[in-house]
Amino acid sequence: MRIALLNPNISKPVSEIILDEAMRAKQPETVLQIRTADFGVEYIETLVEATIAGHAALEMLSSVHPDADAIVLAAFGDPGLDALKQASPIPVIGLTEAAVTVAHALGGRYAVVGISERIGYWYRDVIEAMDPSPRYLGYSGLGERFRSVSTVREEQLDQLLAMCHRAVTDLGADSIILAGAPLAGLAREIVSEIPVPLIDGVRSAVRMAEFMAGMGPLVRRVGAFAPQPEKSHSGLSGSVSQMIGRLREVS
Amino acid sequence: MRIALLNPNISKPVSEIILDEAMRAKQPETVLQIRTADFGVEYIETLVEATIAGHAALEMLSSVHPDADAIVLAAFGDPGLDALKQASPIPVIGLTEAAVTVAHALGGRYAVVGISERIGYWYRDVIEAMDPSPRYLGYSGLGERFRSVSTVREEQLDQLLAMCHRAVTDLGADSIILAGAPLAGLAREIVSEIPVPLIDGVRSAVRMAEFMAGMGPLVRRVGAFAPQPEKSHSGLSGSVSQMIGRLREVS
Amino acid sequence: MRIALLNPNISKPVSEIILDEAMRAKQPETVLQIRTADFGVEYIETLVEATIAGHAALEMLSSVHPDADAIVLAAFGDPGLDALKQASPIPVIGLTEAAVTVAHALGGRYAVVGISERIGYWYRDVIEAMDPSPRYLGYSGLGERFRSVSTVREEQLDQLLAMCHRAVTDLGADSIILAGAPLAGLAREIVSEIPVPLIDGVRSAVRMAEFMAGMGPLVRRVGAFAPQPEKSHSGLSGSVSQMIGRLREVS
Amino acid sequence: MRIALLNPNISKPVSEIILDEAMRAKQPETVLQIRTADFGVEYIETLVEATIAGHAALEMLSSVHPDADAIVLAAFGDPGLDALKQASPIPVIGLTEAAVTVAHALGGRYAVVGISERIGYWYRDVIEAMDPSPRYLGYSGLGERFRSVSTVREEQLDQLLAMCHRAVTDLGADSIILAGAPLAGLAREIVSEIPVPLIDGVRSAVRMAEFMAGMGPLVRRVGAFAPQPEKSHSGLSGSVSQMIGRLREVS
Amino acid sequence: MRIALLNPNISKPVSEIILDEAMRAKQPETVLQIRTADFGVEYIETLVEATIAGHAALEMLSSVHPDADAIVLAAFGDPGLDALKQASPIPVIGLTEAAVTVAHALGGRYAVVGISERIGYWYRDVIEAMDPSPRYLGYSGLGERFRSVSTVREEQLDQLLAMCHRAVTDLGADSIILAGAPLAGLAREIVSEIPVPLIDGVRSAVRMAEFMAGMGPLVRRVGAFAPQPEKSHSGLSGSVSQMIGRLREVS
Amino acid sequence: MRIALLNPNISKPVSEIILDEAMRAKQPETVLQIRTADFGVEYIETLVEATIAGHAALEMLSSVHPDADAIVLAAFGDPGLDALKQASPIPVIGLTEAAVTVAHALGGRYAVVGISERIGYWYRDVIEAMDPSPRYLGYSGLGERFRSVSTVREEQLDQLLAMCHRAVTDLGADSIILAGAPLAGLAREIVSEIPVPLIDGVRSAVRMAEFMAGMGPLVRRVGAFAPQPEKSHSGLSGSVSQMIGRLREVS
Repeated sequence: MRIALLNPNISKPVSEIILDEAMRAKQPETVLQIRTADFGVEYIETLVEATIAGHAALEMLSSVHPDADAIVLAAFGDPGLDALKQASPIPVIGLTEAAVTVAHALGGRYAVVGISERIGYWYRDVIEAMDPSPRYLGYSGLGERFRSVSTVREEQLDQLLAMCHRAVTDLGADSIILAGAPLAGLAREIVSEIPVPLIDGVRSAVRMAEFMAGMGPLVRRVGAFAPQPEKSHSGLSGSVSQMIGRLREVS
Repeated sequence: MRIALLNPNISKPVSEIILDEAMRAKQPETVLQIRTADFGVEYIETLVEATIAGHAALEMLSSVHPDADAIVLAAFGDPGLDALKQASPIPVIGLTEAAVTVAHALGGRYAVVGISERIGYWYRDVIEAMDPSPRYLGYSGLGERFRSVSTVREEQLDQLLAMCHRAVTDLGADSIILAGAPLAGLAREIVSEIPVPLIDGVRSAVRMAEFMAGMGPLVRRVGAFAPQPEKSHSGLSGSVSQMIGRLREVS
Repeated sequence: MRIALLNPNISKPVSEIILDEAMRAKQPETVLQIRTADFGVEYIETLVEATIAGHAALEMLSSVHPDADAIVLAAFGDPGLDALKQASPIPVIGLTEAAVTVAHALGGRYAVVGISERIGYWYRDVIEAMDPSPRYLGYSGLGERFRSVSTVREEQLDQLLAMCHRAVTDLGADSIILAGAPLAGLAREIVSEIPVPLIDGVRSAVRMAEFMAGMGPLVRRVGAFAPQPEKSHSGLSGSVSQMIGRLREVS
Repeated sequence: MRIALLNPNISKPVSEIILDEAMRAKQPETVLQIRTADFGVEYIETLVEATIAGHAALEMLSSVHPDADAIVLAAFGDPGLDALKQASPIPVIGLTEAAVTVAHALGGRYAVVGISERIGYWYRDVIEAMDPSPRYLGYSGLGERFRSVSTVREEQLDQLLAMCHRAVTDLGADSIILAGAPLAGLAREIVSEIPVPLIDGVRSAVRMAEFMAGMGPLVRRVGAFAPQPEKSHSGLSGSVSQMIGRLREVS
Repeated sequence: MRIALLNPNISKPVSEIILDEAMRAKQPETVLQIRTADFGVEYIETLVEATIAGHAALEMLSSVHPDADAIVLAAFGDPGLDALKQASPIPVIGLTEAAVTVAHALGGRYAVVGISERIGYWYRDVIEAMDPSPRYLGYSGLGERFRSVSTVREEQLDQLLAMCHRAVTDLGADSIILAGAPLAGLAREIVSEIPVPLIDGVRSAVRMAEFMAGMGPLVRRVGAFAPQPEKSHSGLSGSVSQMIGRLREVS
Repeated sequence: MRIALLNPNISKPVSEIILDEAMRAKQPETVLQIRTADFGVEYIETLVEATIAGHAALEMLSSVHPDADAIVLAAFGDPGLDALKQASPIPVIGLTEAAVTVAHALGGRYAVVGISERIGYWYRDVIEAMDPSPRYLGYSGLGERFRSVSTVREEQLDQLLAMCHRAVTDLGADSIILAGAPLAGLAREIVSEIPVPLIDGVRSAVRMAEFMAGMGPLVRRVGAFAPQPEKSHSGLSGSVSQMIGRLREVS
């Protein structure tokens, strides 16, 4: 099985954190590929950055290996996810989608802990739209800004642990999602310190992509998920028009 | 990996249909085990039958292989699912839960097609509670009663196909869940005739169980999913009290 | 009028607490009958115990007096309630259902106070499913374990009063439901100390059963609440198959 | 027990239809009183008329017998119900509130059938706000205008029966609410022709008022349902200011 | 453009506060008219008072200038708003409706701050019905009673500022609605002290009325918003029957 | 007042249709500016196209006149709207947002009619997220493909009229939104043929932008709508980084 990881941000160190955890999460025979966005920001915190990342993720579809069986959109918040699902001939799974799926599959209620309060507005919007049930207990993020997105995990470890403990004692969380690609792997490292399951977005998404890769071919001959309609376009990169395969250039 | 399939109904022919499709769906190295309920009905149609099946499913936990990595509750409607998730030290996945997860992962809206109109009340209740979003477009079931639950798939093939086509043209379904263990395998057989993805509950649940088995140990030392509290009890089978492990017999 | 109270747990002392309060709540000419479950636990705290109690409650239907006009399912959380409504030819009312109905009929918002934090997960699930409106302000339960379910009311009186006061001052509750059959009667005893109405589940359910008993015969010749369909079964107690009346034994 | 029925419309013939059915519904020892509004319209169809009726209902509070134990607001749609609950020292029950409570207590899904399509907008608003669950299947009203509100029941009997049958076959209704005070008693008359329970608003409300009258005194010393605050006012009838008891006249 | 402001309460000083802020908010060429209710209370805090104000507002329709282009219902909580929309041949906008529209148009989440805790029950009901989304973060009101509704703004300034600051820091509000006609103008006065937009109900409603006045004639020949049906009536003021134009007096 | 219209698609003829209707809708003293996207498609039908258009709309922010008072995002479906609201120092209004606001302000329930069934999936997603209430009655689009987006209005007039009539008679619509920039002006042209208000997205948005322009300066010093945080970036056009003003280029 072959799975492509798309980091819709430009930080290669974060891509390496993602790939490292994905390698530990994948089944033995799964082959992984990772791509980093050509344009965008280092990591997403705002709706503006998420909108740009959604476009970047679409552009990355053309770089997916032709034999890939599934795609992981490797940024928590899942920018552009629904469009990717519509454009791609193979399943696409987002980190948030996968982590929330795991939280529900475990049973009980869950809280979400992440690296930035600023990003909370977007995360809350995304999770509440994905899961309007009372199972979602809320998001809490680090109040102060960290030095580097690639080391925030070590730098703020005590604060992150404290937020997890509060999620259990104050909110009654039965499990906790650790949100944000920069926290990939943290769940594994602190598993012994927290009395409820910790859910890693990258691990969840890689395993969920393996799951979906086995669901068979995606037959979509009609409806909203049928191939993109032919249409005049302009100024799009070759990769998007090629991937979509049906756009007619406007001279 | 080792996965236990629990058919909470008493029909061994249906267990065989389930196991047959599960064998096709599983990854090569996965080992399967199936159990059929000791008490209950041939197949569930009513809330009464579902309540009995929920209890039966709990009793079956003690028959799960001690090295199992995950459990599939193999009846659409998922009777007793939340209780099983709470009682079991390994992940438990229901057919409805898995099929709805697949429908969401594919993107778009989905309809559900099944073998009985009578069962529709329960299915609608379960799916609407699981998925309050407008992605769920509704359930339709065979109006007339079939001769046998183990042959309904062949017997009513034309009607089932017609219901799938109506789900696409009238409801705008982007995918279709074929509901009910007796329809296991049908999605594979008619895939070429329907222009949108068909979702098989057994295949979905086996693959999702493999996914969850890889999420690591379920640490649950506190809260609603901590081990069952000790408590006086009476008249319970040894298996339930043993599985739960903490009930104190009332003389 | 004749009303049957079904305690789906095995504790006869709790049955006596229930009957005592029911005697005070009923109209003069109403005749009461109480039954205690043959199998199950002393009192429910978990989803596992609630699932078993749901089956136990169904079994108890056969012990209802043939001239009964309505049934009260006498455990807060209402285990198996919808199945009982479907199986029974006379109205069935649950304690939670009745207490929430009273809270709405009084007007305003209500909080729920009970004897155990552990049970809170199930109560919250049940109440939120029954009442998705913002009128429900939340549940709070005793943090520490009590010595005996039949004396918890006296033993923890101060704590229970404090929780009621906090529901008024912190949550703005316009009324308070005292949850759990072991608290039956407490509302009556502390009415002078709390400045908003206190709602007793047993009193609510007995009065609501009297109400529904006067709504006339339940005509259900078609649909999901028509008599149970005939079907092969196995291992069920005589009482369930007799009550349901339409199950065909599998040899 | 003493129950006051308030018809917030000016039609005395409709008050008589209401009282007639209420007499059949009440328990033997219950004493009934009915009042007809001093101002307003013959029967409500629009939001404008409902707003006027809400005020009229408040004015009628002063005419309630001082020993009354509960009040029935006897117009489907329950104009002014929440304000009445807040103003009254005894329980107040609306026809819609009571009928929806009965539908839920019976179990299953319900449809609503009434005498006017024009009134449907208001009914739908009221019921959807009261019951956001999928149990409510929709409202259908007579398309053509009837000759008289006091004889519409006989005049349009065939159409009303046809609407009930369609609710069962097309919508899958497990019960049907017959909406509108002018239809009081119809459920009783056509019970043998419809295969699911028919719910009469007047019967439901009288029985529910008897239920609530037994719930004990309404203690409301704080919060939104505490006695009305003192305040300057002008142009109000003596009855409202007297009833509310705390308004200070502006000279 | 001509806009009529209807204060459905009897306080002329509050009408002056409203008119003063409306004069500042309106576009230069807009002509304003204000009317104060003939009956009702000084300011609304309860559901009872809101019900009376709804009727008063309907009565005021007949006093609207015949060339008016739009109407502002100038009490936060919007008593009778839907009925006014139905009865009026020109657009009607409420303060709450307008303020919530502005909060959504700005983007982000908003809190509501007002002059009375007692009024909170009604405000919460109205806002939650209008906006079930998680964008609404809650209402907080002054705990203690103020001396005069026309000076509460100055009298309680420090408390109001503190509530606004808490809405930002504790709730994460991206904007704040200042609720209640007596607070009209406060947003303008404290804009420099609060780091997020402050929304004034009167300003919002005047500008929104100007917006809607430009949407063209309201064609409503059929359906729920067609002219009121002719109907017998009694005891209504001439103004209501004249405005509605279709009521037939009962002798 | 100065308002900028941003067409996030590349079709200049559609920009002209939009501008033409905007000129008729605006108040006399309002000055309009229109911009057409540099990249993207002729008109949006899919989630893929909407994602690209969202990015294009952000890029267009730098072309807005420095003295503009408000912005209209001139494509139904409002691609990238929330990000634009976050990035822009002046109010941004989308066509869908404005049309739904008008429908609510008119009162009653509304249906949406548009030029393409394919686009329906996106429109439904957007409207249902924006308005979860039962006031939204559904979307219907032209089944067959039209020859040209700039003439579809004339070409398919009969079909569009028929869809409007069905919205009134079959769905009970109290008003109808005509969706899609290519239909700008149609509401004005067919107003005499449809018995309920027709809502034009461009007119609604221009008037709503004028409304919001008068709400005063957008103070946003803290929280999710504070200025974009500084952050490394790469491959972004100068205009986005300049507009956002706080991105630090990665070498």
